[in-house]
Order: sequence, then C-alpha cells, then structure tokens
Amino acid sequence: MMAAERNPRTRRLRLGMIGGGEGSLIGRGHRYAARLDDSFDLVAGAFSATAARSVASGEALGLPADRVYADWRHMLSQEQALSADERIDAVAIVTPNHVHCEQAIACLEAGFHVICDKPLGVDLAEALRLEAVARESGRVFVLTHNYSGYPLARHAREMISRGDIGTIRIVQVEYVQDWLSKPIEKAGHKQAVWRQDPGKAGPGGALGDIGTHAYQLASFMTGLHADEIFADLSSFVDGRALDDNANVLLRFGSFAKGMLWVSQVAPGNENALRIRIFGSEGSIAWAQEEPNRLSYSRLGEPECIITRASAAVGRDGNYATRVPPGHPEGWIEGFAQIYSDAAEVITAQMEGRAANPGAILLPTVQDGIKGMQFVLASVQSHRSGQWVRTSDIEAGGCVTPQSFDS
Amino acid sequence: MMAAERNPRTRRLRLGMIGGGEGSLIGRGHRYAARLDDSFDLVAGAFSATAARSVASGEALGLPADRVYADWRHMLSQEQALSADERIDAVAIVTPNHVHCEQAIACLEAGFHVICDKPLGVDLAEALRLEAVARESGRVFVLTHNYSGYPLARHAREMISRGDIGTIRIVQVEYVQDWLSKPIEKAGHKQAVWRQDPGKAGPGGALGDIGTHAYQLASFMTGLHADEIFADLSSFVDGRALDDNANVLLRFGSFAKGMLWVSQVAPGNENALRIRIFGSEGSIAWAQEEPNRLSYSRLGEPECIITRASAAVGRDGNYATRVPPGHPEGWIEGFAQIYSDAAEVITAQMEGRAANPGAILLPTVQDGIKGMQFVLASVQSHRSGQWVRTSDIEAGGCVTPQSFDS
Amino acid sequence: MMAAERNPRTRRLRLGMIGGGEGSLIGRGHRYAARLDDSFDLVAGAFSATAARSVASGEALGLPADRVYADWRHMLSQEQALSADERIDAVAIVTPNHVHCEQAIACLEAGFHVICDKPLGVDLAEALRLEAVARESGRVFVLTHNYSGYPLARHAREMISRGDIGTIRIVQVEYVQDWLSKPIEKAGHKQAVWRQDPGKAGPGGALGDIGTHAYQLASFMTGLHADEIFADLSSFVDGRALDDNANVLLRFGSFAKGMLWVSQVAPGNENALRIRIFGSEGSIAWAQEEPNRLSYSRLGEPECIITRASAAVGRDGNYATRVPPGHPEGWIEGFAQIYSDAAEVITAQMEGRAANPGAILLPTVQDGIKGMQFVLASVQSHRSGQWVRTSDIEAGGCVTPQSFDS
Amino acid sequence: MMAAERNPRTRRLRLGMIGGGEGSLIGRGHRYAARLDDSFDLVAGAFSATAARSVASGEALGLPADRVYADWRHMLSQEQALSADERIDAVAIVTPNHVHCEQAIACLEAGFHVICDKPLGVDLAEALRLEAVARESGRVFVLTHNYSGYPLARHAREMISRGDIGTIRIVQVEYVQDWLSKPIEKAGHKQAVWRQDPGKAGPGGALGDIGTHAYQLASFMTGLHADEIFADLSSFVDGRALDDNANVLLRFGSFAKGMLWVSQVAPGNENALRIRIFGSEGSIAWAQEEPNRLSYSRLGEPECIITRASAAVGRDGNYATRVPPGHPEGWIEGFAQIYSDAAEVITAQMEGRAANPGAILLPTVQDGIKGMQFVLASVQSHRSGQWVRTSDIEAGGCVTPQSFDS
Repeated sequence: MMAAERNPRTRRLRLGMIGGGEGSLIGRGHRYAARLDDSFDLVAGAFSATAARSVASGEALGLPADRVYADWRHMLSQEQALSADERIDAVAIVTPNHVHCEQAIACLEAGFHVICDKPLGVDLAEALRLEAVARESGRVFVLTHNYSGYPLARHAREMISRGDIGTIRIVQVEYVQDWLSKPIEKAGHKQAVWRQDPGKAGPGGALGDIGTHAYQLASFMTGLHADEIFADLSSFVDGRALDDNANVLLRFGSFAKGMLWVSQVAPGNENALRIRIFGSEGSIAWAQEEPNRLSYSRLGEPECIITRASAAVGRDGNYATRVPPGHPEGWIEGFAQIYSDAAEVITAQMEGRAANPGAILLPTVQDGIKGMQFVLASVQSHRSGQWVRTSDIEAGGCVTPQSFDS
Repeated sequence: MMAAERNPRTRRLRLGMIGGGEGSLIGRGHRYAARLDDSFDLVAGAFSATAARSVASGEALGLPADRVYADWRHMLSQEQALSADERIDAVAIVTPNHVHCEQAIACLEAGFHVICDKPLGVDLAEALRLEAVARESGRVFVLTHNYSGYPLARHAREMISRGDIGTIRIVQVEYVQDWLSKPIEKAGHKQAVWRQDPGKAGPGGALGDIGTHAYQLASFMTGLHADEIFADLSSFVDGRALDDNANVLLRFGSFAKGMLWVSQVAPGNENALRIRIFGSEGSIAWAQEEPNRLSYSRLGEPECIITRASAAVGRDGNYATRVPPGHPEGWIEGFAQIYSDAAEVITAQMEGRAANPGAILLPTVQDGIKGMQFVLASVQSHRSGQWVRTSDIEAGGCVTPQSFDS
Repeated sequence: MMAAERNPRTRRLRLGMIGGGEGSLIGRGHRYAARLDDSFDLVAGAFSATAARSVASGEALGLPADRVYADWRHMLSQEQALSADERIDAVAIVTPNHVHCEQAIACLEAGFHVICDKPLGVDLAEALRLEAVARESGRVFVLTHNYSGYPLARHAREMISRGDIGTIRIVQVEYVQDWLSKPIEKAGHKQAVWRQDPGKAGPGGALGDIGTHAYQLASFMTGLHADEIFADLSSFVDGRALDDNANVLLRFGSFAKGMLWVSQVAPGNENALRIRIFGSEGSIAWAQEEPNRLSYSRLGEPECIITRASAAVGRDGNYATRVPPGHPEGWIEGFAQIYSDAAEVITAQMEGRAANPGAILLPTVQDGIKGMQFVLASVQSHRSGQWVRTSDIEAGGCVTPQSFDS
Repeated sequence: MMAAERNPRTRRLRLGMIGGGEGSLIGRGHRYAARLDDSFDLVAGAFSATAARSVASGEALGLPADRVYADWRHMLSQEQALSADERIDAVAIVTPNHVHCEQAIACLEAGFHVICDKPLGVDLAEALRLEAVARESGRVFVLTHNYSGYPLARHAREMISRGDIGTIRIVQVEYVQDWLSKPIEKAGHKQAVWRQDPGKAGPGGALGDIGTHAYQLASFMTGLHADEIFADLSSFVDGRALDDNANVLLRFGSFAKGMLWVSQVAPGNENALRIRIFGSEGSIAWAQEEPNRLSYSRLGEPECIITRASAAVGRDGNYATRVPPGHPEGWIEGFAQIYSDAAEVITAQMEGRAANPGAILLPTVQDGIKGMQFVLASVQSHRSGQWVRTSDIEAGGCVTPQSFDS
C-alpha cells in the first residue's frame, strides 16, 4: 500500500545548493526533504552571497572544503569541470525571490536540473523567460509548491478527477497566518523585511508569499485555473508597501466559482492552509495543519474521514506515503515528496524510461506562471475595482512592483 | 451566574400567531421558543390562509375554538374587542416573506406588539414603511434573527466591544447548507418552491434566506455595518431564478474588510453558520453548530476555548444562559432567548420601567433594514460588476424581484 | 423524519412537583423539560420543606395560591380530593436522594404517576421496596436518566441492536467533571455538601451522582448489564467521606468487557459523559457535550459522522428529534424527551392503547435497581480488592452508607 | 526557539543495523530516523537471518558489498577488526523480540553503542541480564520508545515537572488499534503471527506490543511508576494465545491512580495513543495522532491549545523541534529525535563532555525493565484476580510465556 523505501535506483543523485546557509529556515527545509528519502546527497553548495558565511555553512554541514563555493557562478563552472561521476546532477535554489530567475536560468544552461523555491521571479517577464529556457534545456525544473506533496492532497486530487464529488461548483481556499500582525519589519525582523520590500518580493505581499501556494493547491486538486479574478487587498499594518491581507473572488471558466482568502495578520493562525471543494454530488475538505485526515461528504450521506494510508486511499496518495496509518506524517514528509518525485523524474530521464506515474504530479514551471498571473491579476483588480481576466495578464502588461493603494 | 428561570414577572404575556399551522417548521420553532422560558401563553391564532387548516391546527395545539380564527384580519379585530385582561398582548408572524409587511403593519396599528420572522418584506420600500409604522406605533417590534440569541454569540459581542481583540480588521462569515444541491423545487418541495420564487422570496435566494442571518450576526458581534459590497452570485442548479450561492466581499467603513459566503448547494453542510473575527490583538471564532464553545486567541498566546456558562463568560452571555456548563444548549434555547427578551422588553414597557440590559440586544426593525440593504447591494453589485455602497440603496432604487443574470 | 410537535393528545397532563423550589437547578431542569413539548401543565407543588419557601416558589412560578402546598403529604391528600378533571395526574420528585423512596411510594399509593429524579433511594432495600410498590400500583414510574433521551443516544442503541457493529466486545465509558477539585463542601457549597454526606447521598459519591448515569447509558446503548465489577475508589480531596473518583472494570456476561471512569476532580471537564462501544465489525462513539454528532466506524472503512436528524438516523432517533439537522439540540431537549415519553406512556395507559414504540425507551425503576447494584458492587469491590458479582448484591447485603477506606 | 539543524558535531556517527531488511516496516522507520537529522550514516548491516536476503537488502540500500553481512555475529567481529575511523560506532537492533537480549549484549560486549527496538527481551531475567551488561559496558544503550521523542510530549513532561497542573491525581492513558480485529494471523499475516506467538513476543500480546509504549509515555510525562497493578486481559478473537485487549488499573505510590487501556481489536482506531493527566490545579491531554497540539486546562479557566514551536513551549520541547509552528511534524520526526538524542549522548561521551540537557531524556534500559514489570504484573494480576505490586515482580518470579486464561 505504501511506497517502498522510495523508488529503487542505482545511485543517489548529487545535489548542489544555492543559498540556504546558516539561519535559513527554508534551506534547512530543503535539506531535510532531500535527505529523508535518501534520493539525494548534498555534495556542494554556495550557501551565501557572503563568502565567509558560505564556507562556515558548508563546514557545519560536513561538506568537503573544495565543494563549498564562495560564489554560485563559480560553483556552476567548477562543477561542470568535474567528471560525470562526481559533479552535481541538480541544484536546489533557496535564495530570495528576486534572484531566482537569473540563477535558475544559469543552472539550466549549465546543464543541471533545478529544484527551485517559488516564485519563478518578481515579474511575469522573468517567469516567461525562465519557462522558455527550461523548455529548451531539456532539464527537469521543479518548483517547490510543497503542499501538493502531501498524500491526502494527492488523494483529494485523484478523487475529484475521477468524479467523486461530481461537477465542481465551489472552491473555498484560505492560507492564513498571524506573524505579521505587528509591524515587525520596522524592528528589523529579517523574514519580514524582504517580504514587505517590493523590489525583493515582487508585486504581492501575502498574496505572493502564501497566496500562490493556496492558488496552486486549489488548481492541483481541481485541475482548474481561474479565468477571472476580483480582489480587495489591504495593508492593515501602517506603512506597508505590500498587502498583508487579500480577499479574492475567483471564476473558473464559465461555471465554478471560488473565494480565496490570504492573510498574515489573522491572530490565532500559524500556517493555516485550508481548502474545501464542493461539487454537484459531494465535497472534500483538507487542512495542511491536520494533513493526515481528509473529510469527504457525499450529498445525503454522513461525512467520512479518510485517513492517510488507509484502505480508502488510492494510487497517488499511497505513492506519497511513507509509514502506516495512525503514524502522522507532516511538513517535512510533504516537502520530501517533492524531492523524491524530482529524483524519480530526473533518474527516469537519465535512464531513458518513463517516470513512475505518481511522481509526475510534481509542480513545474507552469505552476509558477499561473501563480504569477494570479498575483498580478489580483493586484490589477484591486487597483481597478474590476474583474480581471488572467489571460489578459501578459509579460508586457505586468505590474511594476510598487506599493498598491489600499 | 445564570439567568433566573427568567425574569420575574407578574404574568405571562398572551400571544397570538399568524401562520405556522400544521407542518410549518418555523411555526413550531416559534412555539418552542415562546414556551421554553414560560414568558408567553399561546392563546389565539390564525394559523393558515385556509380556514379549515387554521381550525385543525388550533385544535391540535389545544386552543379553545373561539380563539382560533379563519382569517388573520378577523383575529386582530376580534382580539381588540376582548377585555384588557383577556386579549392578546403580542402577535407572532410566521407567514411567507411577501405578506410580512402588510401583516406586521396591521398588527402594530391594532395596538399589538409584534414578533416577526425575517425579512421585513420583499423590497426596501416595504421595509421602510414598516419601520415608520413601528416607530410611530410605540409598540415593540422584534425581528427573529435568532442566532444572536445564543449565549456565546452575545459573549463574543461583549468581548469585542470591550476591546479583547483590539481594532477589528477582518470579518470572515459564512452560512452554508446543502439541501438545494439538486433541483428539488421542480419536484414540488414546498420549502424550496417559494424560496426560488422572486415574488414570494424577494430579490435574494440563499442571500435573503440565510445570508441576512450571516450578515446580521457579523454586525451584531462587531457593531459594524458594511459600507461597500461586491458580490458574485450564482445559480448552480439549472433554471433557478434566484441565487443558490453568493460570494460577497465587504468593506466596513474605511478600515475593516470581510468576506461573506452563503450557499445552499454545498454538500456536507447542514446549517453551518460560522464566523471568525480578527483584530489587531486577537481573534474569536464561533460556529452555530457547536454553539457552546467560543474560540479566543490573543496574538502570541495559545488559543483558548471559552465554554458557555463558564467563569470566563460575562454579563450578556450569562443573561442568555439557562443551564450549567457542559449541558449543551442549542437552537431552541437561542430562539427562546429572542422571545424571552421580547417578553422582558414588552413587560418593561407595560410597567413603565427600563428593561434588563441583557434583553435590549434583541434584533429590531433596524436589523431588517440593514439586511435588506445587504441583499439589494449584493444583487446590484453582481449585476454591475462594481462595488456598491449600501447607503446608495434607497427605497426608490430597489431592485425589482426578478431573476439575476448569473 | 422528525416527530410531530409531539404526539397528538386530547389534553396536557397536570403535573405536581415535590421539591425544586427557588434556587434548585434540577427543579428548573424538570420544569423546562415538562414545558418544552407542551405535554404537561405544572399546576401544583410542594416546592420546599420550608413552608414559606414553598409558597414563594409557587408564586414566582405563577401558580394559584390554593395549589401551592407547604407540605408534600398535604399536597397528595388535597389533590386526591379534587375532581378527576382538576387534580394532578403525575408528580415530579426533585428532592435530595434520601427522601426519594418514601415520597415516590406515597405518590404511587395515592394513585399518581411518578417522574422521579435518580436514584431510587439510598440503599438497595429502599430501591427494591419502591420497585415492588411501583409494580403493584399500576402507575407509571419514570426515573430521569435523561442522557438516554438524546436522539443520537437512541440511534446508537438502535444501530447496535440491529448489529451494525457486530458482537460487542469492549465498552469504554466515562463521566467526568471538575467542580469538586477543591474542598468546596467545607466552604458550605450547598450542592457539594449533601453529595459528600453519606446519609443524604448514599454509599456512592461521584459513583452515585454521575457514575450511575454513565452505567445506565452504557446499558441503554448496549442492552448489557455488568455481571462482575472491580473498582478502585479514591477521595483525592482530603477529608471526604465518599469517593470523588472511581476507576471501575466491568465484565458483561462471559464475553464483553469494559472500563468506566467517573471523576469530579478532573480539571478541564465540565460534564463530560462520553461513551465508545466496539464490536467485532465496527464501533460507535458519542459524547454528551457534542450530542448532535455520532461517530461510526466499520472495520476497514473510514469513520463516518452521523448527525442528528440526518438521513442516516432511524426510527428511535427521529422520534426524539424536534428540529432539522444543523440546529443543535441539547440538554433541555434530551431531558424533555424523558418527560414527553412519560406523557405518552401515561396517556396511552389512560386511553387503553399501546404507547408509541419510541416512547417506551424511557428509563424505569429497573434502571434504578441496576444502578444501585452498580454502586454497591463498586464499593464492595473497592473494600475487598476482589471482583464482585452484581447478582450477589442483595437487599440484605447492602452496604451501610459510610466512608470507604481509600 | 528551534533546535539548530541538530547539534554541531565533528562527524556523523557510523551505524550498523541488525535486522530490518526488505519489507520490514520498523527497519525502515529506524533508517528514516537515523537519516533525518544527519546524525548517522548507515554503513553496515546484517539485515536478515537469511544470507541472500541480507545481501539483497544491503544492495538496495546502496551499501558497499563488503559491509553487508550474512550473519550478525560476523558483522560484529569484522567491524571490530576495522580501523577506528572506519568501523561502526553503534548498532541498531530491529529484530523480533526474542533475540533482542542476546544481540544487544553481544554488541555492547563488542564495544558498540546500541539503539534497540523495545522490548529488552521476552522475560525479566533477560532484561535484567541486559541491564547489567549495559551498565558495565560503559556504552550507551537506547531503547526506542519513540513516542517520548515528540516535542509536545516533552513539553508536557516539562510542564508537569514544574508544577503546572499541581499534584498529580489521575492518569488516563490508552493505546488502541484495530488491525487485529479479525484472526489475520491464521491467514499468515507476518506481523500478526509473531505477535501472537508467546515464544517470540513474550508474555504480553497487545500489552507488550503497544501497552509498554503507553506505560512508558505515562511514566515519562509524570515521572511516576506504578506500584500496584490490577488487570483484566482478553483474547477477543478465538484461539489467541496472548491478549488482544487489556483493561488495567494502576496505583502510583500511595496517591495517584490511573487507568490504562490497550487494544488491537477496537475498530476505528489506527494508532491511537492518547494520554490525559489530571492534577490538583489543572490537566493536560495529548494524542499521538495529533501530535502538534497539547491541551492544557487550569482549574476554573478556559482550555488552552498549546501548539508545537509556539511561544508557550519551553526548552525541552523546543530542543526536539525542527520546523516552525503550523508545519506539522510527525512520527518520523519523533522517532528521529530518539536517534538524534542518541547521537548527541554518544558524541558527548566520545568527546568527554556533558550531553545537551535536552538529549538526556532519551529512553534507556530502565524504561525496558519497568515496561517488562508492567507486562508481567498485568499478566499475574489477571491470573490471580488480585492487585499485584510491581516490586514483587522479580527475575525468578517471572511468568513463563504461555497463554493466559481469559
């Protein structure tokens, strides 16, 4: 029922990392994820823009000195020069948003597969450029929308796609936190500072930081993308250049509709990504903070609670499962699934075979493009007080990252 | 801590009822509510527009034959003619929406207090006419927005008004059901038929039927009314003249914002009225289906669960409480609270004294006006694709009850 | 699906009450219960052993002065002397435990039906004497084990009896409170004082006060009675004569086994009566504090949540239901169900017809006997450190109410 | 607030494994745990008693052929012969219960640290022998009672030890599953077969398999051990030699009391380890299946929900935390904590320094002895129908592993 201690493979892939040095939370998350399923060995890194910090970080991680680089460009060229059975296979990019695009393109062009933290960049032009390079490079590009790596998120998708809830009518999704309830960026809180800097974060605040995860998860589960968006953005904390709360209405094609709420100023919420999807025959509900339970209601029947790894779970959910029912899996495992999928897809490509069908659910550059459109359409709708069609968001029309008028 | 077996009073008030005959659910609800706190005696009624049904209903309820009327106008005139210690004090109106206004005005003009099911009527003109009569009559007019009668709904209001969550920023409210997921009105389901008939229900479908409760509860708890509304209405079931789902954005004054979702096509939901309110310092969350628990989070502190009748509950919550903590109170008790408040306010008026401060929280004609504006602004926003100011909704400008273009 | 606004009947029954005067919580509970379904009119009472308090209480309740009695014996003789269409039909006994037996016997012998608060008396001899009188009197005797009046408690019983969980193996039941965590009886807390006085409460403290409810509910749902009992009683608060916590093992016949925990010193619990029953094919779980939800698990299938009044609920659960799904019913309604059942059984007897099958689930004197045996066997087991067979508990062998050695 | 990406260390420890070959769930669990925090490298193993399977397993895990052994004794001698900077530091033992003792002793005597799956052996004599060797060897011996590795289990312990709930009165603990509800051992289900074989499992069925975890967790959190035990064991499924359900009463010293329920035949339960602890001033409740939430109630105050990594959590809970609040950690992380603690304790010993105080909470051979006494006292109590003092359980008096009379 469960996946084997991951896919059989001839060897672990060799991973390099850009960013993610000491004190970086997301760097640590990527390393946990890479390590858990034993699919990658971290063998090289340029962990910081500051040479000394990069070296210290690499040492703390137990890397040999000659594989710790002071500069990421240097890493790419040096690794290219190594023999095929020594050099890295893939690069994990865990730097701030505004350098993602440049670094990812360089990695792909140097012949490495890329696992990149979202977003693709700070504007749609960047995102589209990266998409083009990724397509032409023939390399695997993975965007770590990690919430689609949870077993029951995948099972929900499978249920919906096979019609368990009928025709989708309503999507209710929210991603809510409270850590920006006070102006902590003014006190120099590092994570808060760059997230409220349009030059580094892009045009969306909460919208870009966590709203794109919510949007991606909704798309992942339903197979739908929003055609039209109407948004009301707020900066509840004085002096913010970017939104800390967004109330968004969605229209999916001509039929289904949705609401998306994202906030970083909602006291009592830690990392509350929750989704409910309603169709003509039933509904499902899932929450990231209780990821091992999936609520399923058929119209006229009692609500059922489907648990991870239980008999009710199908192929895709089981593929992403490590341990038996009742042994809670969590954020690290969901994140690891993305890495494990990446390893499988990369290995399959190397071996000239088809990847395991469970693995091809991993998020790609397309998710990045759609997420960017979602943010831009929301900002534009807020400014105009009008519904905005996502297909009208184009590279040329993209919003200059600056404060929105709340 | 709890209210006494209600307010001491010299006598029970005598109640007449219009509508609510055999098979009427809401009629039964009003009778449970009137009876529970021993504040009213049902002594007269015109229970149906059909004379025979009115008589049969009155008999089943054990009323003497001479107080069961075939016609509500006849009831009013006959009761007026009885002696002061015999005739009814108040009338409960539990008929379909389109006759509320006419009946309520007649009752008030005949000198009776009125407890009226919502809404005030089918358009704003009716509502305003009724408001004027109510004001001039000197009689008590109560609109049964019963969800504001729950002890913890009242305690939430008290907490918010005394600043426990700081300045209100975000209001998330939803009222969701699933009983209209299929076109049961086509099969003649009585409750469904009139609710999808604009002539009987007014301009709102789910919006008017349950959305007004959600809106009233949000206003009750926060003390805020929406200044601007943006709405996206749907009729997910083919052939419906009125909305069965509404996604609404709210702006309260220049600061707080909200989302309101109302649906009658969301499988897995019975009567899910839920509200979450977030301020600068904390938040509260309450759900009607688990009414004896109130979630309260202070920023940076663990979530606390305040239970009905517990030591944490203040004056207004305790005033509406009947039994000790751990003994769940529910819908009937919340509804009874509105009746009990009505009895106290009416009695206080009769006795020329101030009513108990706990009782003056009962919903009035103003709630009806605000609810009507909410519905009309939502419909108008949906049609125009624009934000609509509720203050622009006027009697003359009211929407003709007809199908909206979804 | 729901019961009509209760059974059709020719008239309300006339009720007298012994005890339950001003300030009595349980007296108030009985009155809410009697009133809700409109089955009884409270027309007479001897509300206190103190004449003046009885009169004041009757007045506050709006009773005519000549039906308010200073002495309960006087009430019985006076009411007997009234005409058949005026005198009370039934008496509600809501006095302290040690007078239940005497009063109930006198009422039955005077020809009145009896609705009596549990227990039957303070020892088994009393209980058996009362049982004999009840049987011979031909009157209806109802013991208010009110928790078996909840719709989903009744539905759980129906599910189990029709085999939905297979052969019963395990019963886990607990009734837990925290209000006696401190020695409030020393400070004169009225409710605490008599409950810790063996002369007034009988041999069980928490065991008798709430343990009997837990035991009755387990028997009600499963149809099983414990044959053998092993108990470990504690008085965690210094100086208590009776138990404030009881850990009890149960053996039902030769097969099923159970654990019963009762405590009044468990901080964080208000009135937490919870039960879980496991069979060879499935299980159910229900908690009084969330009475509108019943968890049901079939082996190998997802847990389902059956809600009150939903399509999944059968005859007995629906019979005890007042309002639609999603409108929470609670303690008052469950209590009212016992009164409503009593009215139906009494009326059916008067009219010489069979009672509605839903109504005959009401608790009787047999529940009282079984509960008494449960308490006595627990106390005896605790003292001897041995398993005790409930069938060995006899009138002659009953435990003198005195302190147990903890 | 969180632990660094684990303790700084000069190098990863080298780990060998006995048992845990292909298809072994617990072997996989140990490997996830060893890998997550990057504290151990798995470099050698004797993965199966069958040589070919050991080799195949080692290959699948990517080990060099010369470090994969056909026989565990061979592994010990060969590794001893390697140089100090090559040979393994520690051995993980993940074989069936009846060989634990022999293997652990051999490992310790060969100079290796040991991380051993529970229990210590199949009887108390084995356990005591192992204890003696462990003590004399000067090596670190860790027993993988992994549930005490969860951050909030550790925080609960810290809260209790600093007096947050006052004097402990009541302990309610249960560990409940449903996978043995049917006689799957008769159909050859591998995991079920040995667990119902007294020769392989020891004297306890569910009691030994999961009851010891429940007991250890209760002891871990409270700091208390049971002095007296009374037990009622059952084999609900026909033909079982060992218990599949155990109802146990506990007495801790002269004051606190408890109930422990363990079952593998309770439909609807996957791996439901739950604990509630009540003191004179408050209570805590925690459940392994929702490990990121800890319920805390102070007497007279609302229940609070303490979440993992939140501001309310203290030193020990934070030490065991990897990622921020709202990012659920689970079973793998809890298990990894035990390995991480082991690495820290072993490294500290190597480096001649004190271990991090957070790490010294790891379970030791003493937990194994106490667990064994718990099982044996339970079996003996069941047979005798008497309370049994755990201190009366001695090596000589230990129960022959055979069927108990249910």
